[in-house]
Amino acid sequence: MNAPALWQRYRKHLFHDPETGLMLDVSRMNFPDDFLARMEPAMQRAYAEMENLERGAIANLDENRMVGHYWLRDPSLAPSEEIAAEIVETVARVKEFAAGIHGGTITAPGGTRFRRLLVIGIGGSALGPQFVADALGTAADRLEPHFFDNTDPDGMDRVLARLGNGLAETLTVVISKSGGTKETRSGMLEAQDAYRRAGLDFHRHAMAVTGAGSELDRTATEAGWLARFPMWDWVGGRTSETSAVGLLPAALQGIDIDGILAGARQCDALTRRRTTATNPAALLALMWHHATGGRGTRDMVILPYKDRLLLFSRYLQQLVMESLGKERDRTGTVVNQGIAVYGNKGSTDQHAYVQQLREGINNFFVTFVEVLRDRDGKSLEVEPGVTSGDYLSGFFQGTRAALHENGRESLTITIPEVSPATIGVLIALFERAVGLYAALTDINAYHQPGVEAGKKAAGVVLKLQAEVIAHLQGGGEPATADEIAAAIGRDVEVEAVFHILLHAAANPDHGVRIFAAEPLFQSQFGTAG
Amino acid sequence: MNAPALWQRYRKHLFHDPETGLMLDVSRMNFPDDFLARMEPAMQRAYAEMENLERGAIANLDENRMVGHYWLRDPSLAPSEEIAAEIVETVARVKEFAAGIHGGTITAPGGTRFRRLLVIGIGGSALGPQFVADALGTAADRLEPHFFDNTDPDGMDRVLARLGNGLAETLTVVISKSGGTKETRSGMLEAQDAYRRAGLDFHRHAMAVTGAGSELDRTATEAGWLARFPMWDWVGGRTSETSAVGLLPAALQGIDIDGILAGARQCDALTRRRTTATNPAALLALMWHHATGGRGTRDMVILPYKDRLLLFSRYLQQLVMESLGKERDRTGTVVNQGIAVYGNKGSTDQHAYVQQLREGINNFFVTFVEVLRDRDGKSLEVEPGVTSGDYLSGFFQGTRAALHENGRESLTITIPEVSPATIGVLIALFERAVGLYAALTDINAYHQPGVEAGKKAAGVVLKLQAEVIAHLQGGGEPATADEIAAAIGRDVEVEAVFHILLHAAANPDHGVRIFAAEPLFQSQFGTAG
Repeated sequence: MNAPALWQRYRKHLFHDPETGLMLDVSRMNFPDDFLARMEPAMQRAYAEMENLERGAIANLDENRMVGHYWLRDPSLAPSEEIAAEIVETVARVKEFAAGIHGGTITAPGGTRFRRLLVIGIGGSALGPQFVADALGTAADRLEPHFFDNTDPDGMDRVLARLGNGLAETLTVVISKSGGTKETRSGMLEAQDAYRRAGLDFHRHAMAVTGAGSELDRTATEAGWLARFPMWDWVGGRTSETSAVGLLPAALQGIDIDGILAGARQCDALTRRRTTATNPAALLALMWHHATGGRGTRDMVILPYKDRLLLFSRYLQQLVMESLGKERDRTGTVVNQGIAVYGNKGSTDQHAYVQQLREGINNFFVTFVEVLRDRDGKSLEVEPGVTSGDYLSGFFQGTRAALHENGRESLTITIPEVSPATIGVLIALFERAVGLYAALTDINAYHQPGVEAGKKAAGVVLKLQAEVIAHLQGGGEPATADEIAAAIGRDVEVEAVFHILLHAAANPDHGVRIFAAEPLFQSQFGTAG
Repeated sequence: MNAPALWQRYRKHLFHDPETGLMLDVSRMNFPDDFLARMEPAMQRAYAEMENLERGAIANLDENRMVGHYWLRDPSLAPSEEIAAEIVETVARVKEFAAGIHGGTITAPGGTRFRRLLVIGIGGSALGPQFVADALGTAADRLEPHFFDNTDPDGMDRVLARLGNGLAETLTVVISKSGGTKETRSGMLEAQDAYRRAGLDFHRHAMAVTGAGSELDRTATEAGWLARFPMWDWVGGRTSETSAVGLLPAALQGIDIDGILAGARQCDALTRRRTTATNPAALLALMWHHATGGRGTRDMVILPYKDRLLLFSRYLQQLVMESLGKERDRTGTVVNQGIAVYGNKGSTDQHAYVQQLREGINNFFVTFVEVLRDRDGKSLEVEPGVTSGDYLSGFFQGTRAALHENGRESLTITIPEVSPATIGVLIALFERAVGLYAALTDINAYHQPGVEAGKKAAGVVLKLQAEVIAHLQGGGEPATADEIAAAIGRDVEVEAVFHILLHAAANPDHGVRIFAAEPLFQSQFGTAG
């Protein structure tokens, strides 16, 4: 296709919304002329399904739950007055607590003003908050955000070292929908211990976001934490950014959460449209379907040309992959669906892997995110008449063209600037696109049955560890993994026993010692004493 | 395969090196029994090729260059005494300068001690330094590292805001092999301007790492920067971490660079072995070949269970994808090779996309990185007899088992701890694996012909921008993109003109104003005056 024909294609398909400034360009996706018409009946069924879901249908059949993240931005749509009231009240309480912290009416013991924020969560309770904190944080943040997002002891020690003496002025928010997530529980206990070691009372520095009646909710209630905010069963973890999960950390940091909610609400209105050409989420979902054959045969490479959007791809990894990566469709047929998501930012990633994107295996489509506004204020000229932002824009355009020239497909999302409103738009856009794509491919986007297996297997390992350690602490001569497994009647699990022994021997906690041999699996293990 | 048979398979193929502590487990890759024997002749040819390359053969035929990153860790292998002497001298100078900075004999004007470090680079000049800075940084860092790794104006403003008044005590290292990388040049000029605005003399805060005689080298020489360090044409950007590119920032931060070099040297020795079962890089390369059919048909998912290794996957994206993602093989046949790389860290990523890995599209293989040591010192028990590190270990084992159970392949690399030596080992391991895999697939791993196209296209855009801006500044009535393109005789490039106008109108620098219309491409653009 020559340049004038491309310009016609660009004009024909360009989506633009004057209010939010959102643009979506699908002209560099090579879908055939009849593709949109062909998909239209399926698209109409998807719209009807989404409408049903927004009205409170049980969308997550396995778990018998409604899917209500859209109500968070427009409580008037909630299926009951009770739910609407809870949403409104929670947003008001989030803002009230943030104002109290910022204004100094809520303080740490002794009247110490809170200046820092430690968020403890993982998955949907960390990826959204981290994305928003990084995208919208400034040097003027009211609280400086830090995260525990794993159960890595050294990782937590590093964050605590960064906080240093600042722990006295640190507010900790523990986020877990179920209230029983092990990584988050570890993080909470490690944080609590750090406060204790610093002579501080953790409970008077802590807030919780969790489901009513959960283990975490009970802990927070009994110990008298500063506040508790609800997580509802009709909000999934990966779509919880506009619930208290995302809003509380953002508001505490000083971010305009009304702006996020307004942007998401505006985008929800746009993406409810049933005229496909005017619905950016529908266009996205259709392009995913085109690019991947409706089967995930191509990876989604996310390339925002803006440092602040670096974590968008990590946020989208969960939203897209956990929603769409399913073994069976809704009829029970094995389909092994999903779309792999990766990417960091442009033009940085051009220097990492555009070589492969342009010339190598064509197993992807790119989603560029262009931000029109370069910075606050005017820019230096790095060459006569050229700013560093002009270079960023030029590299974006150049890469888009170079990929197209070699038959590599790309989408471009353009936003006017990175602001609370446009972050709300981006979140809502992809939430809806995932919902529509799931409807097109008959996937249940709202459960995650495959996640339990790893957790269960981990539980088995920890139980086995207890048996191994107990056996070793019972004394006796050093023995090999094979011998120890046999001694505790776990011959079959000998490999897991070996891994447990290697890890235990590398750490001082269980008093296990290795008497190394080669080959390594012939090493003996005993207690240090 | 049942558990006892798996244990046999694990034992049969386990690689372990007692000196470095490196382990590699390939037992969860489903290669057939005869695979290794079948590949052995090709593997022997690959060893011979690598040996030839290490002796100074011209491996990068397009650019007529040797490929000598292995010499950086063992100068005695360099093909000439001159090269060996340059390597030795450069490491000595890096350490001397770092000691001078740390000891206060090299200071900013007025005797101000340097406390912070701003590294300006992109691609190979940033990904390695960022990975190492994050993996090995501590609260006791001698200089606190910051990076400009893009030409995003707002991104640079954020870093400068973080540095704040600290610019007076900030040392800036500008890294560009060619000395002409545009993003790096923008970063240097923006930094220089920031120092100027703070009343500071940039040149007395600056060091360069670049090729002798490059544009950057001339700038640094003429302005009398604190120091210049060489980049050689026989070191590729993506394999430059053990040259001054990586060593200078690391040494300045206070990291033990001798440890990194020693680890890499030890791993080089291991990976030169011609007995495949004892060569971990050969085993890695063979597993990549098995998993991807030698054609990149599966993505490489990198999952280190350690926060400090979060950036390893970003480092590997460049090393693997830029090396292997090629249109043609060395005979000139179109092959569109490559392996896509993504991943962040475990167990965090379990809560993002293990759902898809376990149940969804099986288009990947996982590379787990296990770190045996949990933290400095003893751990809190988060349950009786269980630490947060035991959980991390349990989640790793559980996920590995859950993936295997569903027929998803994984490799496991184990290191005893995250240290300069093991980081050197990991870098050298993957460098060699990439070289061997490239030999197996007849790919030139040492050039990047596809990168130029995007840069050239960006240059075209910037030239067009100059024409557009000049035309608008000539006055006249507001006009549409179509009209402006026609007026400057660039009808064919009207879409690029439109993008340029939208970006220019969103920023104050060129005095361009939009008179918005719907559809958006009918908007008019003029000058603000």
